[in-house]
Amino acid sequence: MAEFSDLDGFRTLLGQLPQIDEAARTAAAARNDQLTKPPGALGRLEDIAQWYAGWRGDARPRISSPQIIVFAGNHGVAARGVSAFPPAVTEQMVINFRHGGAAINQLARAAGARLDVHALDLDNPTHDFTQGPAMSQGDIVAALRTGWGAVDAQTDLLVVGEMGIGNTTPAAALAAALLGGDAGKWTGRGTGVDDAGLANKIRVVTEGVVLHRGQGDGLETLRRLGGRELAAMVGAIARARMLRIPVILDGFICTAAAACLAHTIPDALDHCIAGHLSVEGAHGPLLDALDKQPLLALGLRLGEASGAALAIHVVKAALECHSGMATFAEAGVSDA
Amino acid sequence: MAEFSDLDGFRTLLGQLPQIDEAARTAAAARNDQLTKPPGALGRLEDIAQWYAGWRGDARPRISSPQIIVFAGNHGVAARGVSAFPPAVTEQMVINFRHGGAAINQLARAAGARLDVHALDLDNPTHDFTQGPAMSQGDIVAALRTGWGAVDAQTDLLVVGEMGIGNTTPAAALAAALLGGDAGKWTGRGTGVDDAGLANKIRVVTEGVVLHRGQGDGLETLRRLGGRELAAMVGAIARARMLRIPVILDGFICTAAAACLAHTIPDALDHCIAGHLSVEGAHGPLLDALDKQPLLALGLRLGEASGAALAIHVVKAALECHSGMATFAEAGVSDA
Repeated sequence: MAEFSDLDGFRTLLGQLPQIDEAARTAAAARNDQLTKPPGALGRLEDIAQWYAGWRGDARPRISSPQIIVFAGNHGVAARGVSAFPPAVTEQMVINFRHGGAAINQLARAAGARLDVHALDLDNPTHDFTQGPAMSQGDIVAALRTGWGAVDAQTDLLVVGEMGIGNTTPAAALAAALLGGDAGKWTGRGTGVDDAGLANKIRVVTEGVVLHRGQGDGLETLRRLGGRELAAMVGAIARARMLRIPVILDGFICTAAAACLAHTIPDALDHCIAGHLSVEGAHGPLLDALDKQPLLALGLRLGEASGAALAIHVVKAALECHSGMATFAEAGVSDA
Repeated sequence: MAEFSDLDGFRTLLGQLPQIDEAARTAAAARNDQLTKPPGALGRLEDIAQWYAGWRGDARPRISSPQIIVFAGNHGVAARGVSAFPPAVTEQMVINFRHGGAAINQLARAAGARLDVHALDLDNPTHDFTQGPAMSQGDIVAALRTGWGAVDAQTDLLVVGEMGIGNTTPAAALAAALLGGDAGKWTGRGTGVDDAGLANKIRVVTEGVVLHRGQGDGLETLRRLGGRELAAMVGAIARARMLRIPVILDGFICTAAAACLAHTIPDALDHCIAGHLSVEGAHGPLLDALDKQPLLALGLRLGEASGAALAIHVVKAALECHSGMATFAEAGVSDA
């Protein structure tokens, strides 16, 4: 399925990422200027519509086939007591996803989106990154390939998200390793650890960052400090770019994975927008570092693609307005 | 249709507003605690679901019949040069609504909402409020009755919005009269007046506020400084409360109308949430004064119910999660 079999092959593909279609974006901007509303009155909806039109190469597109993919993985570092929930919950939640009982099932249905769930080798947690690299070369390539292959070519808007007990810890370690600063800046309470749990989590993140300092690009950092579901999200985001499918990023863990891609190829996230601002405190600084403004800020901290799934409604609505509204001339409305 | 024939009759009805069903809200909170997610991880969606359940008197409701009503009116004060658009645009936009070409048509369809448009006596603008009351007793009662009668009893979520060239000027005057402070604090650029236009608009608002100072309650202030579409929104919001239909407020003009109701009966907006924060600068302070936190902040300043229509998706999604998710026990997921 995937067009790469090792990490360097994936790096080679990243060197061939397509760029936005400026002609389509310009044509969309010209259309926007003619719609029956005061200039700029639809705010970010107007920006989103033109950005989306540029990526799709169509000045007047609509969104009919959004896809949400949730990747699940388990983490060796979870044994260090970094989560309020036991690791068995990752698989229990995957079953919940398959039975339709989780938040993301409801949110996907409400957004008219296809939902796919990929469990990545849950019986084999990654290695504890305080002891060595979380993943082997084979592990990360398999996860990237799962993500790459999970994107439907007919999808016209992609959301990626994750489930993995303990995975705010690798996300914090990735952010600290890529962006610098104390581990405490990037480490939060996740699903709800107490003060002692948070102090322990910061210690664990610090150990990992120190052990793997200065060991390569964003992808190598992902291999050393990340996890399978994070690597799969990277593979899916890259595949979407190849297919010119715009992507909505979810919360802190998804954004940390995306940051690995941006650290490898600086413009690699130009086809991505930030769906929401999570309550996990490090999400805001991480989005700032990537120059992404979140669409929503509703106090969510669930993961499983939930915030980005809500943002699908906003992006769809932006395109409905852009492509469905009448122009001043068509409607016979006087311009300003 | 309406159960009042004068302003005092409407005031009497406002004294009989139903309150939230605390038993239903408490039952919804108990259900929320059992859902398969970390406590509080759905943020404001959880609060919205419990608030909605309380108003509907049902611990596990869903939203199937949202209704959006756009009221249109014309303003004598528009002759004072307070808008970037000519007054004829109000009627042109009503025709655009009826032909499906406006932003709200696309947003209503995207949200699965019924859209109704009521044009209120467009050939007879209100009086210029710098010369006397904008509306007679008969005018305001007719507009309140139009709003009251426009709400479908089968609606389970109501959005009200407006169209009326020049109507940020009465909205600013209402906010200044009800809440105090300089007219400049409450007066913004609306659809886009320039610096000279803004200075003129502030002068006009100041004249109106000075002329009608200290002349009665929120409804009397609405009669003197408001407009037909603002009064109709007040009538619809009150009728929704009688029917226990939760309401999403739109932008600055809608919120200024709602403030007249809150100034008459302090808890009259308990069944309302703020859909979004408009770019019109005075909207934020007005929402603060009403103790309402907006759900969205997407840089909109269009009116015609657009921001609240987008917020329908969030409220619907909140209830889909609340009423559709599995509990820990149902899903066999370990609790924290």
